[in-house]
Amino acid sequence: MAAEAEQGFCPLDEASLVAYIKATPALASRLGGALDSITIREVGDGNLNFVYIVLSDAGAIVIKQALPYVRCVGDSWPMTRERAYFEASALREHGRLCPDHVPEVYHFDRAMSLIGMRYIEPPHIILRKGLIAGVEYPHLAEHMSDYMAKTLFFTSMIYNTTTDHKKGVAQYCANVEMCRLTEQVVFSDPYRVSKFNRWTSPHLDKDAEAVREDDELKLEAAELKAMFIERAQALIHGDLHTGSIMILPKVIDPEFAFYGPMGFDIGAFLGNLILAYFAQNGHADQANDRKAYKKWILKTIEESWNLFYNKFVELWNKHKEGNGEAYLPDIFNKSDLLSLAQKKYMINIFHDSLGFGAAKMIRRIVGIAHVEDLESIRDANKRALCERATLNCAKAILKGRRQYENIEQLSIELTENTIRGIATQSLFCFTHSKENAKR
Amino acid sequence: MAAEAEQGFCPLDEASLVAYIKATPALASRLGGALDSITIREVGDGNLNFVYIVLSDAGAIVIKQALPYVRCVGDSWPMTRERAYFEASALREHGRLCPDHVPEVYHFDRAMSLIGMRYIEPPHIILRKGLIAGVEYPHLAEHMSDYMAKTLFFTSMIYNTTTDHKKGVAQYCANVEMCRLTEQVVFSDPYRVSKFNRWTSPHLDKDAEAVREDDELKLEAAELKAMFIERAQALIHGDLHTGSIMILPKVIDPEFAFYGPMGFDIGAFLGNLILAYFAQNGHADQANDRKAYKKWILKTIEESWNLFYNKFVELWNKHKEGNGEAYLPDIFNKSDLLSLAQKKYMINIFHDSLGFGAAKMIRRIVGIAHVEDLESIRDANKRALCERATLNCAKAILKGRRQYENIEQLSIELTENTIRGIATQSLFCFTHSKENAKR
Repeated sequence: MAAEAEQGFCPLDEASLVAYIKATPALASRLGGALDSITIREVGDGNLNFVYIVLSDAGAIVIKQALPYVRCVGDSWPMTRERAYFEASALREHGRLCPDHVPEVYHFDRAMSLIGMRYIEPPHIILRKGLIAGVEYPHLAEHMSDYMAKTLFFTSMIYNTTTDHKKGVAQYCANVEMCRLTEQVVFSDPYRVSKFNRWTSPHLDKDAEAVREDDELKLEAAELKAMFIERAQALIHGDLHTGSIMILPKVIDPEFAFYGPMGFDIGAFLGNLILAYFAQNGHADQANDRKAYKKWILKTIEESWNLFYNKFVELWNKHKEGNGEAYLPDIFNKSDLLSLAQKKYMINIFHDSLGFGAAKMIRRIVGIAHVEDLESIRDANKRALCERATLNCAKAILKGRRQYENIEQLSIELTENTIRGIATQSLFCFTHSKENAKR
Repeated sequence: MAAEAEQGFCPLDEASLVAYIKATPALASRLGGALDSITIREVGDGNLNFVYIVLSDAGAIVIKQALPYVRCVGDSWPMTRERAYFEASALREHGRLCPDHVPEVYHFDRAMSLIGMRYIEPPHIILRKGLIAGVEYPHLAEHMSDYMAKTLFFTSMIYNTTTDHKKGVAQYCANVEMCRLTEQVVFSDPYRVSKFNRWTSPHLDKDAEAVREDDELKLEAAELKAMFIERAQALIHGDLHTGSIMILPKVIDPEFAFYGPMGFDIGAFLGNLILAYFAQNGHADQANDRKAYKKWILKTIEESWNLFYNKFVELWNKHKEGNGEAYLPDIFNKSDLLSLAQKKYMINIFHDSLGFGAAKMIRRIVGIAHVEDLESIRDANKRALCERATLNCAKAILKGRRQYENIEQLSIELTENTIRGIATQSLFCFTHSKENAKR
C-alpha cells in the first residue's frame, strides 16, 4: 500500500472524492459551478470496481475507480489497477468509432486509476435488469449490431494496416491480468474442480460433474481458449454481457479490452440473450407467462446477428479500397470473389461467436460468477430447471457450432427445446438429480 | 542519413570494421590477440544485409550489419535497421532453447545494427547449395525436427504462462516492417499484378496469370495471410527456408522473427525441400539421374515432419505438469484425453504447415524472390518444366491441405506426380505455354 501511495494512488471515499472533483476542472466543469450541492452515491454492483454517481444542481458525472484487487472477492485476489487505463483507452477508441453507443470519457487519471465519464440518467438501466423484468427494447438489435460492427470492423485487419494493427496489439498485450482472469473463469475453472466454482446444489451436482468429465466439451473449450489467447483479430470489449450494456444502449466497462477474436464479443452478447431466454420460465407467473417475451428475445437474437452481418459487410464494401491489409482490392478484384471471401469470413465469425457464447453460458451455470437472470429465481427447483436447460443448450452449441449455417436454425431449435438433437428442457432431469444428491 | 549518424549508426566497410573490432573486446577476444593478421571477406548473398567473415590466425567470427534498405533492391526500398535487434533477440532466445542448432551471439550493437556471431567453418555450407549439388545429409531431419520442436514448443502457450507469452508477443510486434515484407511478397504480390513479380517468361506467362485468376487459391492465401498476421502461436523464425540453414545444421538469419503461426516455419522448411525435389530433374544428367536423391529428399520430408511430431509431443508430455496455460493438467487429466488433444493440435499444425509451405513455393515461382534450386537450371525450357510442376503441386496442396492425414500421403503423391488428383508433371504443358506466348 505504501508503494502504491508513493505512485500517487489512494482509494477514494465519498468525502475525498468531493475534494478530488473540486481540484479537477474537467470534472468540476461538468457539474456546473454548483459544487456545494454535490451528492454522491456508490453504485458499483459489478465484481471489480467502485462506481460513484455524482450529482449537482447543474450536472452529473460518473466516477469509476479501480482498486488493486477484485472487489467481490476482496484483497485476497489482487488485480492490477492498470485495468482502468485499458478501460479508458478502449472507451476512447470505441467511442471514437461508435460515439452513439459508448459513454464519453471526461477525465482519466492513471495514477489514481480513476475515470470520469458521462452519467446515464434514469430511467436508463442495465440491459440485464430490463431482460429480467421482461421489457422489450425494439431498437436493441439495431443499436448493438451497430456498436459491434463498427468497433470490430474498424479495429480489424480488413480496415487497418499491419503497422497500426500491431501497434494496438502490443499496447493491449499489457492488459494481460484481465485476460488471465477470463482464461481462468471462462475457459478453465468450469472444466475442472475449483474452489471458486459453484452451482445450484444439490440439483446440478451431477450436471457440473458431467461438464468436468465431458472430453469433447473440454477439447472444444481448449480450442476456444487458444483462439482467445493467440488470435489478435480486433480490439474487443472483452466482457460484452448484458450487464455491460446500459439501455440507451451505451456499452460500458471495457476493462477487459484487448486484441482478441471478434466472436468473443458477439458471443458474449448473444450468449447472454440466450441465458435471458432460458431464465424467463423462472420469471413467468400467472400475470405473465413470458411466452411473448421469449419470442421477442429470439427475434432480437436473430436480428442482432443478421444486422451485424449486414452492417459489417456494408462497412467492408464501403472501405474495400482503403488501407486494410487483409483483403487487398487488386487481389479481391471481382465482386463475386469479394462476396465469397465475405461469406467465408462471416461464417467463421458466426461459428466462433456460437462457441464463445456457449462457453460463456456454461461458466455462468457452473463457474464462479453467475448472472442475475438466473440467480433472481428464488425457487431453487425452478432455477435448477432453467439452469440445466441453459447448460444442455450451451453444451450442444459448443460441440455442434460448426454445423449451423444461419442464426434462424438456432432460433428454431431454441423454440423446439432441442439443440442439435439434444433436449434442453426435461422435467425428468431434476428427479435424477435429487436422487444423486441422496447418494 | 544525418539523423541516423546522430543515433550512432554508420555503415561499415572492411577498413572501418577492423577498427570496430579492435575497439570491441567481445569481438577482439574471439580473434585471439592476433588482430594484425585479420582478413575480412564480404559474403552476404542474401537479399538484405552485409555479412563479413573475419579471420585471424587465432580465431574467426562473422559480423552482420543491417543497412536501412533492402540490399538486393537498393535504397529505393527502405527497411528498418531494427530488424537486427529482432534477429539478435531471436538468435539468443532460440539459442537458449536449442543451442545445438543456433549460432552463438558474441556481441550485439543496436545503434550500429551489428551482430557478431560464431563463424561456421568450411566445408559447412548453406543447405540449399547442398541440395542443388545432390548431397545427402543423413541427420538433417533429426536435427531440424529438433530445432523446430524446441523453438516452437518452448515459446508456445502449451509451455508458457499467458503473462510471459504476451510479453513476448508485444516485444516482437515492433518487428512489423519485416512482417509487412512477408505479407507483401508471400501472400499478396503473387496473387496480383505487381512490378516486383517475375517468372520464367514466356514459358510460364499463362501459369502466372492463372494464379492471379484462381479464386479458390486467392481465398486460401487470404486465410493464411490472416493467420500469419493475427495468430501469435509461438516465436517463429519467420524465414526458415533452406537458405537460412547452414549444414551442421545451424539455423541463421531470424530477422523476420515474431510471434506467429508455427506452420509458417515448418511449412517453409518442408516447402523448400519440395522445391528442391522438383528442381532435381533440372540438375539430372547422364552421370547422375538424381532418382536416388529424389527418394532421399522425400524420405527427409517424411522424417522431418514425423520426427517433429514425435519430439513436440514428447516435450508436451514431459512438461504437461508445468506452467503452460493452454492445456491445464487438471482439465486434461486423463492420458487418452491429452492424447486426443495432442492429435487435434498436431493435425492443425500439419495442415497449416502444408498451406504455408505451398504459399512459399508459389511465391518462389511467380513472385519477387526466386530460389537457386530452380534459378541455377540454365536451360529455360527445362527450368520452366520444373517450375510448372512445382507450381501445380503447390496450388493443389494449398487448396487440398485439409484432406491430408499424414505426410506419407503427400510423399506418395509426389512420387506419382499427382497431388490431390492434379498432375504436377506434364510434358504437354510447355507446348501450350509456347503457343500462348505467340499470341
